[in-house]
Amino acid sequence: MPAPKISVDEVIAILEHIRDQHPLVHCLTNHVVKNFTANVLLALGAAPAMVEHADEAAEFASMASALLVNIGTLDEQQMTAILRAIPSANKAHKPWVLDPVAVGPLTVRTHFAHEILTQRPTLIRGNASEIIALAGQAGRGRGVDSGDSAEAALAAAKSLATQTGGAVLVTGQIDYATDGTATVACANGHPLMTRVTGVGCAQGAIAAACAAVANSPLAAAVAAATLMGVAGDLAARVSVRPGSFSEALLDSLYQLDAAILRREAKLS
Amino acid sequence: MPAPKISVDEVIAILEHIRDQHPLVHCLTNHVVKNFTANVLLALGAAPAMVEHADEAAEFASMASALLVNIGTLDEQQMTAILRAIPSANKAHKPWVLDPVAVGPLTVRTHFAHEILTQRPTLIRGNASEIIALAGQAGRGRGVDSGDSAEAALAAAKSLATQTGGAVLVTGQIDYATDGTATVACANGHPLMTRVTGVGCAQGAIAAACAAVANSPLAAAVAAATLMGVAGDLAARVSVRPGSFSEALLDSLYQLDAAILRREAKLS
Amino acid sequence: MPAPKISVDEVIAILEHIRDQHPLVHCLTNHVVKNFTANVLLALGAAPAMVEHADEAAEFASMASALLVNIGTLDEQQMTAILRAIPSANKAHKPWVLDPVAVGPLTVRTHFAHEILTQRPTLIRGNASEIIALAGQAGRGRGVDSGDSAEAALAAAKSLATQTGGAVLVTGQIDYATDGTATVACANGHPLMTRVTGVGCAQGAIAAACAAVANSPLAAAVAAATLMGVAGDLAARVSVRPGSFSEALLDSLYQLDAAILRREAKLS
Repeated sequence: MPAPKISVDEVIAILEHIRDQHPLVHCLTNHVVKNFTANVLLALGAAPAMVEHADEAAEFASMASALLVNIGTLDEQQMTAILRAIPSANKAHKPWVLDPVAVGPLTVRTHFAHEILTQRPTLIRGNASEIIALAGQAGRGRGVDSGDSAEAALAAAKSLATQTGGAVLVTGQIDYATDGTATVACANGHPLMTRVTGVGCAQGAIAAACAAVANSPLAAAVAAATLMGVAGDLAARVSVRPGSFSEALLDSLYQLDAAILRREAKLS
Repeated sequence: MPAPKISVDEVIAILEHIRDQHPLVHCLTNHVVKNFTANVLLALGAAPAMVEHADEAAEFASMASALLVNIGTLDEQQMTAILRAIPSANKAHKPWVLDPVAVGPLTVRTHFAHEILTQRPTLIRGNASEIIALAGQAGRGRGVDSGDSAEAALAAAKSLATQTGGAVLVTGQIDYATDGTATVACANGHPLMTRVTGVGCAQGAIAAACAAVANSPLAAAVAAATLMGVAGDLAARVSVRPGSFSEALLDSLYQLDAAILRREAKLS
Repeated sequence: MPAPKISVDEVIAILEHIRDQHPLVHCLTNHVVKNFTANVLLALGAAPAMVEHADEAAEFASMASALLVNIGTLDEQQMTAILRAIPSANKAHKPWVLDPVAVGPLTVRTHFAHEILTQRPTLIRGNASEIIALAGQAGRGRGVDSGDSAEAALAAAKSLATQTGGAVLVTGQIDYATDGTATVACANGHPLMTRVTGVGCAQGAIAAACAAVANSPLAAAVAAATLMGVAGDLAARVSVRPGSFSEALLDSLYQLDAAILRREAKLS
């Protein structure tokens, strides 16, 4: 078996850069997960900021280290802010991450996601149904749940990565990161992560923090999968009930270090 | 003492249906409690989705298993979304739950709640002051706090249930569920539940999940009271401080099963 | 060393008034921290309410015990609500607190904060960069992080307090409360408080609760610094990881009493 294209050493380097540089992540994300997303970024060592007025979103996207666009509770006002923030980030050469929540079954966000896709996100993070739908294929999503396996979405992910020139992270029991050429699988993570709202959305924010300090979009995608996955593995050893698991997940993100990552990461 | 109209066996059956079917609950709810509401639904086994763009809210209300309308942080945009979502749910024969937060002292929401009441919610959940005010009587509410006892609101609750053809759940030290004819009292629950924000609002979301799988609105109301109340009883045995109680409440919802409900439920 | 202008006995009296009177705090605050802010107020014994429709915000500001204006995720709709709520609170002689989140680097909120400053907030709470920028000087803030020390902001704080006739609380490793004449330092608190989102914002809500029952704005500012700071000290003895620290912070606020405050408060 060949070594994975992105090694655990690169993931460790990304974590250390986050801890040193505290990248400021501008999150245009959904209402349900704003608090949890901010706490995940802080636990990891990054700095969150949610700036939502369209004028300020445009202003701030060029100051921040990276931008997250998550369309989970999209409304007209947020659409305006997103359409102002993305070109500002692009112009300032700041990476931006697209999390196409529930794209497929819902019309407005599906059109919107296709529209902003043309502005070439550095990284796209979604479940299999979302990635399949974003690539223009018919998925089986139901709200935020995926009806498809991550493996089934790999071809769509590669196609999207080629189209954007960035990386795509398809999440599932195994997460797959691809830049269209190389693909890395990350087998960390625990089923309880689907019983706490916002774990996936917060992984998108981690991906933005990683993209701010990584050498490549693919490395950022692999790091986001590994950091959240390993934290989930550690948290499940503390508790397998969702309230205490959620707390343990934040504690685990805070504790992550080179030794833990070297011991726990399951990359291939 | 006669047996309660809805037995603990029916509550157990509802919980098992939720665990099997993972009903998708469309929550148009207030900003303060979106995260906690989603986590409560996930802990119980249901699937939350907050879809807020008016076009999408209408589209999604017919796809989801049930709709929750909670007017705690009502604004013009959400009013529009609610007015689109309710007819869509009704047309698709999906149950919807109304939580008339702070109706009475505040003018806009009081008019709005009376307006949507004509669209006959399957279930209404509120504290005594809210139920009294929604029935057109003068309550003593102060923001989200009730100045009236649940017992004092029973006549108003019965009148509302008769008017809508659904059920009403009046919450307080003892929760009362009524369909206008039969009334069931649930004596579970702990005072700390009022020291964690969103417990009542999340109970409205549970009521929507229950209504998606129950045989009657009354059964759904009794199940919502019992599931949240018993979880509160269990959580208070873990901690009587609000931060750790809140976490234990989620853990307890996840753990609920037939044996626990049979042992703990206080229905009459 | 002279005794501090506000003694721990006054802080204790304020806590006891909050526990007795449950002041209702109207929070026009940012999306990220609404849930945590409500839980902090409930843990302390106050009552939170987030009422956001502009008509209702105006109506409610005169009913509530105090108003919090936090501009962290300001948008056009919230600006309208704030501009309606402040005069209503002022007219009803209810205290209001301004938390000028990220004022300085962001244009819209900086102009807006200067505009509402003329309506004389009872209390202003911010980090050093925000206080310096609000006073019209050039700060070094980066999003919600302060690039300046609290000590460096003291002159700006005194100038703002003189201008408004209220008090200013500058937060940092040591918090400083001033009314322009007297200044009190509070040395409680723990670095982990900066790794949980919303601790500072929730302190603004505590300040509003304190202002509703205190004899002076300065006493309210000192109480807000001491109550949150001591709770942070206690929480850090339970856990030094952010997920469990956050929960312990709520538990600690709930537990605070005269004996703990007398033992722990570091006022000078």
